[in-house]
Amino acid sequence: MTMKLYCFGESGNAYKAALPLSLSGLDWEAVKVDFFGGETRTAQYRETINEMGEAPVLIDGDTRISQSGAIQMYITEKSGKFSGRDAVEAREIMRWVLWDNHKLSGVNGMTRFLMNFLPEDKRPAEVIAFNQGRLQAAYKTLDAQLKGRDWIVGDGPTNADFSCCGYLFYPEPFGFDRADWPEIDRWLSNIQALDGWKHPYDLMPGSPADRA
Amino acid sequence: MTMKLYCFGESGNAYKAALPLSLSGLDWEAVKVDFFGGETRTAQYRETINEMGEAPVLIDGDTRISQSGAIQMYITEKSGKFSGRDAVEAREIMRWVLWDNHKLSGVNGMTRFLMNFLPEDKRPAEVIAFNQGRLQAAYKTLDAQLKGRDWIVGDGPTNADFSCCGYLFYPEPFGFDRADWPEIDRWLSNIQALDGWKHPYDLMPGSPADRA
Repeated sequence: MTMKLYCFGESGNAYKAALPLSLSGLDWEAVKVDFFGGETRTAQYRETINEMGEAPVLIDGDTRISQSGAIQMYITEKSGKFSGRDAVEAREIMRWVLWDNHKLSGVNGMTRFLMNFLPEDKRPAEVIAFNQGRLQAAYKTLDAQLKGRDWIVGDGPTNADFSCCGYLFYPEPFGFDRADWPEIDRWLSNIQALDGWKHPYDLMPGSPADRA
Repeated sequence: MTMKLYCFGESGNAYKAALPLSLSGLDWEAVKVDFFGGETRTAQYRETINEMGEAPVLIDGDTRISQSGAIQMYITEKSGKFSGRDAVEAREIMRWVLWDNHKLSGVNGMTRFLMNFLPEDKRPAEVIAFNQGRLQAAYKTLDAQLKGRDWIVGDGPTNADFSCCGYLFYPEPFGFDRADWPEIDRWLSNIQALDGWKHPYDLMPGSPADRA
């Protein structure tokens, strides 16, 4: 049975699941979640899709999983890919996935939303500035980790890479410029060079162009 | 060899590791990190303890792990405890640990810091108000999950519980009152009733009283 990923193109959290699905060779299809129409905030969505009221959600027969990091682990279970070559690497990958959820995607996803998808008169300037300060520290940590390395952990692409890159390919301004971070820039090019790589707006349904 | 947990009492993220360590019966000791003296921000700490510049960090012989969720998984590996009874529960636990990192501890830890540990004239009011709004949504999700349940996943305490409770026992004000959330309140009492449970300020070295 084809797995279904509930997702939408603007969501870097959904991209963190869609990208390894796409690269894994597993059989899947995208189901568009109408986030901007309020679908994830409905009682029906919480009751039937995800009690956390979020995307992405992966449905595989009777199995239903939310949280991109948990979906990544499931893709690894099914494909045998992207979790490093031993328990030590697997633990390192988990550290970076958790760090990303807390310090990187957890903050730059929100900041991009506030700066681009809220009406201009509703954008909280102090919150945006505060988050951008935190993000400088996060980008600095990631850039330092990538020095002399092609991938965050080990010798090939893993869930750590797919997690941390979640929001970094998007064109909307949110205080991140690849040119400022040479190691991150080189690593993002490595990801883009993977066979089958697609940009989030090409991999999942929905983009700002649809609402323009 | 006794495991060492680099931690400090004020850190709910450290508590998320210290609590299952304590309840596991494994042999460990706390090493105080002088966070308020700037230790985690030194180059030496990044180079020798944690390149992410954070606590907690667990040292077990040659093994060094940061990120509370990764430390929890290691405690589970060593003790066989707190990860549910099958792969389905383990996956559910991982979902809630990730959700906590992103939506709960990732936000209430920061909010408590801003409201209590920054000088009064440096506290960013708009950021605090924004975070408290996000936290209401997170508490609502957690409270709903706990309805009719004693634990977040399955029939006993797991890493999901130890993750989500990270900041909820602290006395400093940060916009959370147990009385407002009856299911969360009951669940926190279940955690407190576990044999060997300790409050963060009793389990780890360092508390605001030391700096008063």
